[in-house]
Amino acid sequence: MPATPFIPFHATPVFPRGFRCASRNVGLKPTARDLTLFASEVDAAAAAVFTRNHFPGAPIILGRETIKSGRLRAIVANSKVSNVATGVQGVANARRMAAAAAQELGTTADRVLVSSTGVIGVPLPIEKIERGIAGMTSELQDDPMVGAQGIMTTDTHPKALSASVGNATITWVAKGSGMIEPNMATMLAYIFTDAEFDATTLDAMLRRAVRSSFNVLSVDTDTSTSDTCVILANGMAGAVDADAFYETLRAGCVRMTEILARDGEGATRMIRVNVSGALNDTEAHIVAKSIVNSPLVKTMVHGADPNVGRLLMAIGKCFTCTIVPTSTDASINGFQVVRGGERLDFDDDVVRETLSREVVDLDVSLGVGTGAALVYGCDLTNGYVEENAAYYSS
Amino acid sequence: MPATPFIPFHATPVFPRGFRCASRNVGLKPTARDLTLFASEVDAAAAAVFTRNHFPGAPIILGRETIKSGRLRAIVANSKVSNVATGVQGVANARRMAAAAAQELGTTADRVLVSSTGVIGVPLPIEKIERGIAGMTSELQDDPMVGAQGIMTTDTHPKALSASVGNATITWVAKGSGMIEPNMATMLAYIFTDAEFDATTLDAMLRRAVRSSFNVLSVDTDTSTSDTCVILANGMAGAVDADAFYETLRAGCVRMTEILARDGEGATRMIRVNVSGALNDTEAHIVAKSIVNSPLVKTMVHGADPNVGRLLMAIGKCFTCTIVPTSTDASINGFQVVRGGERLDFDDDVVRETLSREVVDLDVSLGVGTGAALVYGCDLTNGYVEENAAYYSS
Repeated sequence: MPATPFIPFHATPVFPRGFRCASRNVGLKPTARDLTLFASEVDAAAAAVFTRNHFPGAPIILGRETIKSGRLRAIVANSKVSNVATGVQGVANARRMAAAAAQELGTTADRVLVSSTGVIGVPLPIEKIERGIAGMTSELQDDPMVGAQGIMTTDTHPKALSASVGNATITWVAKGSGMIEPNMATMLAYIFTDAEFDATTLDAMLRRAVRSSFNVLSVDTDTSTSDTCVILANGMAGAVDADAFYETLRAGCVRMTEILARDGEGATRMIRVNVSGALNDTEAHIVAKSIVNSPLVKTMVHGADPNVGRLLMAIGKCFTCTIVPTSTDASINGFQVVRGGERLDFDDDVVRETLSREVVDLDVSLGVGTGAALVYGCDLTNGYVEENAAYYSS
Repeated sequence: MPATPFIPFHATPVFPRGFRCASRNVGLKPTARDLTLFASEVDAAAAAVFTRNHFPGAPIILGRETIKSGRLRAIVANSKVSNVATGVQGVANARRMAAAAAQELGTTADRVLVSSTGVIGVPLPIEKIERGIAGMTSELQDDPMVGAQGIMTTDTHPKALSASVGNATITWVAKGSGMIEPNMATMLAYIFTDAEFDATTLDAMLRRAVRSSFNVLSVDTDTSTSDTCVILANGMAGAVDADAFYETLRAGCVRMTEILARDGEGATRMIRVNVSGALNDTEAHIVAKSIVNSPLVKTMVHGADPNVGRLLMAIGKCFTCTIVPTSTDASINGFQVVRGGERLDFDDDVVRETLSREVVDLDVSLGVGTGAALVYGCDLTNGYVEENAAYYSS
């Protein structure tokens, strides 16, 4: 795995030159903000990756068409209702939402990316959105947290980051805490920069960065129908070094992935699983995912229960992978608990203590090759069960 | 899917001719029964399937060797400690356990199948077992529930069934509620019959029956390191019709699968997912498993929350399958909630009521072929989280 360089993220997130946002309550939720507008002063080069779910939301269907031009001026997003499984009417409503935002901003609908997030299968209250968006331009401001607040669903806090690279700035705004096992991209993640890149270069960098960040996160194995990750580069800071830009882009995506993992629905701990010594990277990824997605490993971490044999169970159920029990080692936060496929005779209290930390690093060495993978997840708690047993009704 | 014929299971389970069992507390658990002996008066033809987990327990390693002869006289099983990830010493202890049972019963160790179930990675207290088994022959009795009690771990009730086929009887005894997503077989399931079949025929029938019963059950996606399903036929009732025998064998395996699903750790409801109209049976199975294993579908059922869009999410994340949104329909207990990939405008209260039943049938029609699959699972509850956050420590 490439090491993540030290990137000095700004203490308080700021926007790159030319980007602003606004968010409002337009009546989709009782009182919380439910409509958000991100806008650039000028057209930006843009690239995006979307969910691979076979039931993409209407905004994804429209977004794939919109992004083809590689140019965006704005993003409009609502929370509470995802506009998924809503058929032809859903796509028509997504188009109306783009048109309303374009009219408000003085651009055209094909320059506006639409996102909707929330309950699946409920019609989008498009009239409320059209009425509610009027006048939002006057509220556009420099604080990315305003936009981050507007796109929250079950998130417990708004999520935004920014960092400098040369003369330019990169800003990440994201939401997401459940239905997260991205495949092409994940949840809603918006990235803004004033660096100058063409859409093709942006697209390549975005896909590469997403592979080792958002795409290795799993909260609950469930892949959203609305996953969207988009980057807008308006060029207002001019050209910057591409390698430095990519490193910062990737570091911010990894950091945001960790932030999302820590805010997984009901989560109390982030789990990082680092598999090395696999036959190849693909097998390392399968094993790492099996561990991070195992309900028995997740509950073990939640309870800080030193039931480490479950790590072997989760490795061992990767039927298609090369696993040699006698060469399999495992550590928790650097403390070795398994050697040669056998549980070591450790002090349970030491493992209880280390499993109680906010970040739990599970390191597995398979001893059969040089394949490696690092994935992110969280523990499984009563909070997850309670939140999702009444998501629609509450 | 072949329909399951109506099989009149006995109101109270009984053993076939020549089979008896005993169970005791030998000090592995504080007071509950933890050691069980099942014995036939004469050698029985036998077949078994075991877990495919790469870290099989010592009893599995030994059992694969023992079953090669196709002859068994007895099964000895302990609960509390699984004797998994215990290395060479673990296998030596499993052999000592077989030898102790053989000596007590007056047979040889190669006629005794060993099972251990419980915590992974803890040494087997073999001396307690050797001391505790002495004299158990005098306690052998005709009630299969005595043996079912002795092999329980987190099960909330002992599990045994019996049915007649011709002049013979088949009896199923099983345990299991967590770490259940079998691949070759599952948990511990012992099947006894006095019908006469050779080991090769038994093996073929067992593998076929397991494919559409235990192997389509998933409580939590986690595949045990101790899964064992074994059948013993002592021939004391003579020959019976093979087709009738197979139908009864399969029906009992399906019934026991349902019993295990309903007793999934923390479960309050059994979920049956029936997928039809898939491109082929393999794709139907992938889609059915995706639904039954989705934490968001499981919590929706638990909360009786009519958030049926989650069914589409779970279908749609089967990236490798042929899914045509406009031909996708879904029903809950016969009440249609999705048509052509869109959520119908139904009365939420009707769906809340039907999701509150003890058995929830989720029927999905993909409309692209004739592939079908039926799988079993259960809801995800706080009970599961609590039980597994402290399994080792409690």
